[in-house]
Amino acid sequence: MKVYKDWSPSPRTIMTPGPVEVDPRVLRTMSYPILGQFDPEFTSLMNETMAMLRELFMTENEWAFPVDGTSRSGIEAVLVGLIEPGDKVLVPIYGRFGYLLTEIAQRCGGEVVALEKEWGAVFRPAEIADAIRLHRPSLVALVHGETSTGRLQPLEGIGHVCRETGALLVVDAVATVGGVRLATDELLIDAVIGGTQKCLSVPAGMAPITYNKRAEAKLQRRKKIERGLLPEGVSADAPATLRPIQSNYLDIGQLQDYWSPARLNHHTEATSMLYALREGLRLVLEEGLEARYERHRRHEAALVAGIEAMGLTLYGDPSCKMPVVTCVEIPAGLDGESVRAMLLEQFGIEIASSFGPLKGKIWRIGTMGYSCSKRNVLLTLGALEAALIRHGCELEAGRGVQAALDVYGV
Amino acid sequence: MKVYKDWSPSPRTIMTPGPVEVDPRVLRTMSYPILGQFDPEFTSLMNETMAMLRELFMTENEWAFPVDGTSRSGIEAVLVGLIEPGDKVLVPIYGRFGYLLTEIAQRCGGEVVALEKEWGAVFRPAEIADAIRLHRPSLVALVHGETSTGRLQPLEGIGHVCRETGALLVVDAVATVGGVRLATDELLIDAVIGGTQKCLSVPAGMAPITYNKRAEAKLQRRKKIERGLLPEGVSADAPATLRPIQSNYLDIGQLQDYWSPARLNHHTEATSMLYALREGLRLVLEEGLEARYERHRRHEAALVAGIEAMGLTLYGDPSCKMPVVTCVEIPAGLDGESVRAMLLEQFGIEIASSFGPLKGKIWRIGTMGYSCSKRNVLLTLGALEAALIRHGCELEAGRGVQAALDVYGV
Repeated sequence: MKVYKDWSPSPRTIMTPGPVEVDPRVLRTMSYPILGQFDPEFTSLMNETMAMLRELFMTENEWAFPVDGTSRSGIEAVLVGLIEPGDKVLVPIYGRFGYLLTEIAQRCGGEVVALEKEWGAVFRPAEIADAIRLHRPSLVALVHGETSTGRLQPLEGIGHVCRETGALLVVDAVATVGGVRLATDELLIDAVIGGTQKCLSVPAGMAPITYNKRAEAKLQRRKKIERGLLPEGVSADAPATLRPIQSNYLDIGQLQDYWSPARLNHHTEATSMLYALREGLRLVLEEGLEARYERHRRHEAALVAGIEAMGLTLYGDPSCKMPVVTCVEIPAGLDGESVRAMLLEQFGIEIASSFGPLKGKIWRIGTMGYSCSKRNVLLTLGALEAALIRHGCELEAGRGVQAALDVYGV
Repeated sequence: MKVYKDWSPSPRTIMTPGPVEVDPRVLRTMSYPILGQFDPEFTSLMNETMAMLRELFMTENEWAFPVDGTSRSGIEAVLVGLIEPGDKVLVPIYGRFGYLLTEIAQRCGGEVVALEKEWGAVFRPAEIADAIRLHRPSLVALVHGETSTGRLQPLEGIGHVCRETGALLVVDAVATVGGVRLATDELLIDAVIGGTQKCLSVPAGMAPITYNKRAEAKLQRRKKIERGLLPEGVSADAPATLRPIQSNYLDIGQLQDYWSPARLNHHTEATSMLYALREGLRLVLEEGLEARYERHRRHEAALVAGIEAMGLTLYGDPSCKMPVVTCVEIPAGLDGESVRAMLLEQFGIEIASSFGPLKGKIWRIGTMGYSCSKRNVLLTLGALEAALIRHGCELEAGRGVQAALDVYGV
C-alpha cells in the first residue's frame, strides 16, 4: 500500500497576482470546528458576512453574498443569470480576462459584440459609451483590473450610458476588490464580482458578488424552485416568464433564496471558507477601505521605484497601471522562467509569468492584500537583483532595494 | 461604524446527514499557509490527491479530481459535460436528490425520462435495467444513497445494461463515498460524484469526481480552449465535433487540462480546501476502506437499537436502509422542530429534518465520518430521550442508551 506522508508547506513569499498570502487570523478561523448550515449561529455569520460585503462593495444593495466556487464561478453565476440566450452582450477586451468574459457570455447563449484594445492599454470611457449607444446591448461586461496586462479600466460615466440605453452593467472586480477603490453604487454598476485570493487575502474557493434591483428584476423573471423542495400538492411549474437559467449550481435566484430569511436549501454552504471570508472582511473593515487602498499605492510606489532603479522596464501604458500588479518586461535574451524558478527554489519567493501573447515576455509582480507589505517588497527586490546577476545581467548591485527604502523614507 | 466581533463556534455534536464534524487533523491543515497554484510543491499535492481519490473510488481511472464547489457543482460538471442538448437521460427517482438530478439534467438540455418510486423504497436493479432497454437513453443518472429518505439503491447489473445499450452510467455518491462501499470499476460506472462534507468529514466546498475513458471520449468531442490562453497566431477555433459545454466553470474538459501535466490555467485551485481534502483522504486510507465501512455499520447498529428501544419507529423499507443515515418517524402530535431546537440549544447536538413531503414527518440522524463514533451515538440517544420526555412523550427512561451500550458490548 502506498503511504501518503504527513506534510506542511514550505515557507513562501507570494508576490503573484493571486493567490497571495493569507493573514494568520484568517488561517486560524479555518481551523475552527464546523457548524451545521442551518445552525442559527452559522446563519447569523452568513448575515454578518452579507453586511460586511455591502461595505466592501460600497453599496446599499440588498444582495451581497459569496458564490461557493473560485472567482470565475461568480462571474459565470452573474452572467448566466443575467444573459438570456440571444441577448446582445458588449465586452470591451483589453487582456485575457476580457476574453474570459466573452467566452462565458457565449456559453450562456449571449450574442457577443467584442471591442478589442491592444494589450497594455485600456479604453477611454467615451469609447465604451459610444459603442453602447451604437450596439444597444442588453448587457455590458468588463474587467476593472486586468491582471494579465496589469491595466486598470476607468469606469466613470459608463453606468450612466447603460441606464440611458437600458443595458445592465457587470464589472469583474476579481483582482481589485479590497485593493483599489470601486464604488458600486456611485458608478451605477448593476452587478460586481470580487475575488477572495487577491486583495482580500482569503484562500481561493469563494466569489463574493453583489447586484442591485435592476439585475434582480431580470433574475426574478427566470426563477425556478426545485421540485424536491416543494411541499405536497404544490406545483413545480415555474412562475418564470423568461427561459430558466441554464445552470442549477450557479442559479443566483436560488442562491438568493438560500441567503434570504427563507433559507431555501440549495447547496451546503462551505463552512470553513465562510469563516475565512468573514475574518478576511473584518480585517479589511478594521483597516478601513481608504487606508487599505493607500497602503496598496504606497507599496506599489516602492516596488516600481526599485524595479526602475535596477534598470528594468515596466510593461504597458503607465497612465492606466493597476496599483496592485506591476508588469516588468523580461530583458531581451533572458530566460524569464529560469529567473522565476531561481526566485522560488533559492529564495522561496514566487512571482508570476503571463498568458497567451505575453507568455515569456513579462513578469507580473503582485502587491495584494497581506502580501502587500514593506518586508515583501524589499525581500523581492533583493532576491530579484541577485537572480538577475546570477543569470548574467549587468546591473548596478544594491540600487533596487535602496530606491525602495528611499520611498519608504527609511 | 458597525463593529464585527471576534468569534469562535460553540461546541457542537453534528449528527445530520452533512455537513458533519471534521477531524482535527483536517482542520489543522486548513490553517497552513497558502502555496501558489503552480508551485511544484502544490502541484505535487494535487497529483497525490488524484492518486488517493482513485483508491477512494476503487478505480483505475486516469481522472479523479475535485471540482471547486460544493457537491452539486460536481454533479452539474459531470452532467453538463456528458449531456448534449437533446440527449435522452433516464433518471430513476426515489427522493429529493433524484429530482435534483432531473432538474440539473433538464437545465443541461437533456430530454429526461423520469422513473418514480414512492419515497421510502428503492428500485430493484432489474426495473432500472428494463427501463434502460425500453427507453435507450444516452445517459442514466441515479443516486446511490438518498439522504432525504435514508435509502440505498443497489447498483448491481445496471452498468452491464448500460454497456449493452451504449448509455453512460453516472452515479451520485455524494452521501456514501467513504462510508458505504462503492466499487466504481467493478460496477462499470462511467462517472461518480462524491461529497466532502459527509462520510469524508471534510468541510463543504469541493466535489471529488472520477470518470473513465468512455466518459472522456464524449468530453473530448466537446472541447474548447480559451482564446486568452492561446499563443499568438494559434486559432481559437474549437476542434470539437459536438456542441461545446454550456458552462465554462464546470467544463470538465478544461478542468482535466488543468489537472493534467499541461496545467492549462482555468480557475485558481482552492488551496486550503485541497489541503483539507488531501488530509481527509489520508485519514480514510489509513483507516482502510473496509474498516471504515464496518465502523459505519457498527455505529448504525447501536443507534438503531437505541432508537427502537426508546419505542420510536424507523421510517422506510428496512431492506434498503442507508447505513449512514437513520430516518425516524416523528411521533404523532409531537412538534419535531421543537425537539430539534431543544437538542441544539440545550445539548449542542444537531439532527436534521427532511424535505418536501417528509418535512415535519421524520427526523434524520447521520452517522458519518468523524461524527460516526460511539461517543456521539450515546450522547445523541441520551439527549433525544431527555428532549422527548420534556415534550411530554411517554417512554421508559434509560432504555435507549442501554440498548446501544449492549450493541457495543460494554
